[in-house]
Amino acid sequence: MTTVPALAAAAPGAPLEPTRIRRRPVGEHDVLIEIAYVGICHSDIHQVREEWGAAAFPMVPGHEIAGVVTEAGPGVTRFAVGDRVGVGCLVDSCRRCAHCRRGEEQFCAEGMTSTYNAVGRDGAPTYGGYSTHIVVDENYVLALPDGLAPAEAAPLLCAGITMYAPLVRWGAGPGRRVAIAGLGGLGHLGVKLARAMGAEVTVLSRGPRKREDALRLGAAHFRATGGPSALDELNGHFDLLVSTASAPLDLDAYLGLLAVGGTLVHVGVPPGPSPLTVAALVDGRRNLAGSFIGGIAETQAMLDFCAAHRIGAEVEVIHAKQVDEAYDRVVAGDVRYRFVIDVSTLGRADR
Amino acid sequence: MTTVPALAAAAPGAPLEPTRIRRRPVGEHDVLIEIAYVGICHSDIHQVREEWGAAAFPMVPGHEIAGVVTEAGPGVTRFAVGDRVGVGCLVDSCRRCAHCRRGEEQFCAEGMTSTYNAVGRDGAPTYGGYSTHIVVDENYVLALPDGLAPAEAAPLLCAGITMYAPLVRWGAGPGRRVAIAGLGGLGHLGVKLARAMGAEVTVLSRGPRKREDALRLGAAHFRATGGPSALDELNGHFDLLVSTASAPLDLDAYLGLLAVGGTLVHVGVPPGPSPLTVAALVDGRRNLAGSFIGGIAETQAMLDFCAAHRIGAEVEVIHAKQVDEAYDRVVAGDVRYRFVIDVSTLGRADR
Repeated sequence: MTTVPALAAAAPGAPLEPTRIRRRPVGEHDVLIEIAYVGICHSDIHQVREEWGAAAFPMVPGHEIAGVVTEAGPGVTRFAVGDRVGVGCLVDSCRRCAHCRRGEEQFCAEGMTSTYNAVGRDGAPTYGGYSTHIVVDENYVLALPDGLAPAEAAPLLCAGITMYAPLVRWGAGPGRRVAIAGLGGLGHLGVKLARAMGAEVTVLSRGPRKREDALRLGAAHFRATGGPSALDELNGHFDLLVSTASAPLDLDAYLGLLAVGGTLVHVGVPPGPSPLTVAALVDGRRNLAGSFIGGIAETQAMLDFCAAHRIGAEVEVIHAKQVDEAYDRVVAGDVRYRFVIDVSTLGRADR
Repeated sequence: MTTVPALAAAAPGAPLEPTRIRRRPVGEHDVLIEIAYVGICHSDIHQVREEWGAAAFPMVPGHEIAGVVTEAGPGVTRFAVGDRVGVGCLVDSCRRCAHCRRGEEQFCAEGMTSTYNAVGRDGAPTYGGYSTHIVVDENYVLALPDGLAPAEAAPLLCAGITMYAPLVRWGAGPGRRVAIAGLGGLGHLGVKLARAMGAEVTVLSRGPRKREDALRLGAAHFRATGGPSALDELNGHFDLLVSTASAPLDLDAYLGLLAVGGTLVHVGVPPGPSPLTVAALVDGRRNLAGSFIGGIAETQAMLDFCAAHRIGAEVEVIHAKQVDEAYDRVVAGDVRYRFVIDVSTLGRADR
């Protein structure tokens, strides 16, 4: 048992304050990771502000973790001291259920152990990556391939896999028209990934201001969705549309943008029910799907793909004391495209 | 040009009356089919009653046609006089678009030519199978394999392919739990098909009265869905759920019945919008899909599958003069499971 510096919210909506938290001793199959960078995911904010139901406090958010192994338990076989590694949204699962056995640990029948705001299988609360160190079972640790800069790699651990999984599952690739709705932390990685997979990418964004970025990131087309008939000429156009929106979508209208057999995948979760006309699915044999991060092996495949295609997040690296301000800017949509905390600023005494 | 006996509705909601209609001369690639049996599909009723928007009258419904080739045009290569054949929901399409070229003629970019209540590519209205004869381009004619009795085969041409296509596409097979919601003309074929594909089939039906039938048809389980929590214990259970309901479904509740990665497919089209909570899709990576009949090659594959597995519809064969009464009974849900008109009764003078 050791204590390490961290940023924690003491109560729902409280500011992130420097503190010290306990990390478990490095066990047989654990690695101790010195964290270099941690991304700020919108879900951190939802949970700190208790917008997703009752949460556990104090809370140390952070599930987009990039760092280096500084200690390895005696049973560790996959990593060695000095290895560059990442940790994403989950740090454990039952390992026995059908989902775990097929590498879909995020759907573990007993529930995956979230990197923070959860209770670990040892009964202790889990604390995330807004912290200088974390201890994780090696089976839930990802290798960061050479060529991925750690600050740009950190957001891949959640945002990257969130976009990669549905793009692969629903066949983004050469000859396919893929739309990414929403150009934020998720969407900008979706554009890069879908483009690298060979698809023809269109960005759908509310206003016109992100056009230049969209094209720079790899989109072939950009469409501002404001206005009542802005999308009409795209009816029947896309094989795949991945919506990152957390605001309710006009489902019938967006399904209408799909070609025959096309799929609209939600990775964002709008609150409450939205109206859906089933005929919009039957006409043209369309699909409406959801997707939720990915398993460990799939996350590793995503990192390897990103390294091969030189894909990282576009990041704004911040000091630990800027986190609360960054939260407000994320909520305001004022970030291009991901805040990443330089964790080396956390150990300093200047705050 | 020749005229043949038919049953036609003169106006929306009018009774089906004996009349004579024109059939085009047998062209280069046409076959003339003497119709033996034609199924009564619920969509016949919707169209005759103009419940699906403006329709063309007089209307001769019928797109579940089984008969025998009695004449073949000089360019016909696939069929010969005496061959047992079927005709389904479409009798033509553009043949050039991407959909036609990949055998999805039902999604023809120019619109498929429906077997009735449409305008053919020659500019003449199309008349369906409530008639002694029909002339169809051989490319839109199906071979009825040996072993399929024509009365039981007729409903396969619409109801059969409607169920077969989503079961194949979404992977019904050994080790998969498949639910069929609604045990009617569509559902009873869904049970037989899914069972023959090797799936473990559960029938979901409003009341308990079809339990015995469901099990006899091949279902392993039956569940009456009435009552507020009747389905709770099936949460997370099914890999695939095909809903034949034309009444609105509680989408969130039914999506909750799906296992991780599971799919709820609508083949029925409930009117108007239904509320859907997107989180029900993201949790467990679930899909909500629609399906619409099938292409010609796929329909042939379905017939071949049915012949190999001795699958036919359960039918009640009726006289032509019983059609109006049969319509009322279909609407009342009083048919097990498909009315089929014995077309030989149509030529007679007793009505």
